[in-house]
Amino acid sequence: MDAMTLHVSAGGGYDILIDHGVLDRAGGLIKAALPRAKRLFVVTDTNVSPLYGPRLVASLEIESFEVHTYVLPAGETSKSASNLVALWEWMTAHGVTRTDGVVALGGGVVGDLAGFAASTVLRGVGLVQIPTTLLSQVDSSVGGKTAIDLATGKNLAGTFTQPRLVLMDPETLRTLPDREFAAGMAEVVKYGCIWDAAFFAFLKARPSREALMADIAHILHTCCEIKRQVVETDEHDTGLRMILNFGHTLGHAYELAGGYTRWIHGEAVAAGMVTAAKLGVAQGVTDPDVPGQIEAILSPLGLPTAIDCDFSDLEKAVGIDKKSAGDDVTLILLEKIGAVLPLKLPKAQVLDVLAEMRGR
Amino acid sequence: MDAMTLHVSAGGGYDILIDHGVLDRAGGLIKAALPRAKRLFVVTDTNVSPLYGPRLVASLEIESFEVHTYVLPAGETSKSASNLVALWEWMTAHGVTRTDGVVALGGGVVGDLAGFAASTVLRGVGLVQIPTTLLSQVDSSVGGKTAIDLATGKNLAGTFTQPRLVLMDPETLRTLPDREFAAGMAEVVKYGCIWDAAFFAFLKARPSREALMADIAHILHTCCEIKRQVVETDEHDTGLRMILNFGHTLGHAYELAGGYTRWIHGEAVAAGMVTAAKLGVAQGVTDPDVPGQIEAILSPLGLPTAIDCDFSDLEKAVGIDKKSAGDDVTLILLEKIGAVLPLKLPKAQVLDVLAEMRGR
Repeated sequence: MDAMTLHVSAGGGYDILIDHGVLDRAGGLIKAALPRAKRLFVVTDTNVSPLYGPRLVASLEIESFEVHTYVLPAGETSKSASNLVALWEWMTAHGVTRTDGVVALGGGVVGDLAGFAASTVLRGVGLVQIPTTLLSQVDSSVGGKTAIDLATGKNLAGTFTQPRLVLMDPETLRTLPDREFAAGMAEVVKYGCIWDAAFFAFLKARPSREALMADIAHILHTCCEIKRQVVETDEHDTGLRMILNFGHTLGHAYELAGGYTRWIHGEAVAAGMVTAAKLGVAQGVTDPDVPGQIEAILSPLGLPTAIDCDFSDLEKAVGIDKKSAGDDVTLILLEKIGAVLPLKLPKAQVLDVLAEMRGR
Repeated sequence: MDAMTLHVSAGGGYDILIDHGVLDRAGGLIKAALPRAKRLFVVTDTNVSPLYGPRLVASLEIESFEVHTYVLPAGETSKSASNLVALWEWMTAHGVTRTDGVVALGGGVVGDLAGFAASTVLRGVGLVQIPTTLLSQVDSSVGGKTAIDLATGKNLAGTFTQPRLVLMDPETLRTLPDREFAAGMAEVVKYGCIWDAAFFAFLKARPSREALMADIAHILHTCCEIKRQVVETDEHDTGLRMILNFGHTLGHAYELAGGYTRWIHGEAVAAGMVTAAKLGVAQGVTDPDVPGQIEAILSPLGLPTAIDCDFSDLEKAVGIDKKSAGDDVTLILLEKIGAVLPLKLPKAQVLDVLAEMRGR
């Protein structure tokens, strides 16, 4: 497979490099992206560190970087304020300067937390993202959102910050559990739903992990390219970018209903997309065959297409979702596969329709 | 006195309004600056809250804002990570949305902490600064720097973020202790030193608090205008803005030596400016009469012009100062009053000169 590169012009502009074995070339690539860095602060977790940490660190040390490594416990609970403060103290205790850099090696939790820390220590140092999960490769690499969770909810504090470089090694996906791979595919399918019917058909023709992996670089590239187009138009998340939330408002309700432990993010989004499609049909704006088309692509991957939850969780997700300003909620619906339709509706009306759908 | 307005184009652009009694008009002005805000989160401290909190809140409630108030303990120790997290939890628990706003009412500690919280909660909500100390009016209102202190040092985490509006009521300076007023004047004098010999002379001709207060709006306006020119050229602190650090690297050493309790920031900066001037003379780049000129303006205000400290504190300040990248340190020196000269020198050479100056 040939290497693929994507240039994102948001922020100062940066490259996304998708290539098998790129981990072993990380040192030279990072040296080119952060030419004045002496120290690199690698943030990773207990799952990823033993698998890929040594290869990355070896590649960095060949380039004479002073490398410090922080290993977080794997899992969403690491995306905490206390770990953010711990990273700040750790970097400043090791003499970080404004020309040094942070390297995030891992999934979305590592990327979100390390990105927030990088964008705020000394008011911002360089950030290199090396996402190792399908979800983080297609979702977190473009867009520049960082965050931590608070006691009051998920992703409630963070920054917009662009990395200086993103490196993706598709090989890292081979060690991903099936469940995590499928969850990442929910976000992949989302890009087809909102933007690209041909890509949706491409995915539909590859109904197994093996078939998808045979074309994974193309899949990663397509998702990042779609997100790039959306994000470059809307760097600060004030309009178009909301289409990336297709399936997410309802997905949050399902995550909440499962106490954030029963369903992982991508699974909740999968069911959220199908339900949003049905809601669109109920509102008369979505082609009636859309829910079935989405189900047909998600089900073979083992993803849930409906999740039961208390109505109070739906109310909370629609009511307190941070993307909702005031008393209306903007739902991201589809006209058809590949054609998105953001619709601003009173919260009460959305809840009525959801209640009615549940009643059937 | 007439109201004075200054427009700063950094960020999305915002106005600084300097006017007697502007606190009582804050509600309408903030409504114009944050037209979609429903909730305002006022952050203040135990010194300022009883003096100006009720007037501000009354003015906000007339405009039907839902007002929440958070009162921090007065003092530098409030600029902590734990208070940052407390502000995030407080705002999100009260249902902050992305169109709401934060109002910082107080000095630099309140402005830095509330600004950091505002720029990161939900990845950024609107910020209104109402600085009530001379130091914060001339220093923190322009430039968009926010920060907290860490166990490892001061101002080590933060963001660059521009407010949507800055309101200054010169009346609030009347309740400022003499020591705080003088400390603020150190920063005022700094602007004359680095940028404007005529302004320096204007200040020299007003050697008392009373005389300065008679022209305070002009003084505030001049300082903000100078900082505006510097910051608009260098929004992200990569070059010109460093001239604002005149007196500050050595000042940090003096603050450190006094355990951050013996000398307040402006006092340390006063002595730092005189010592930097002497260092410039010793290096042969500064007119020999400059140290005496600066002393002549600082002394009548009761500010220290020399502070004794351990050499190890100087080493720390020169060595770990976050503005220094790598092994050189950029010292901000003067050619003469009104003409600044940033000079990049090896850290070792700076320490040699400082050691020699101490030996005399």
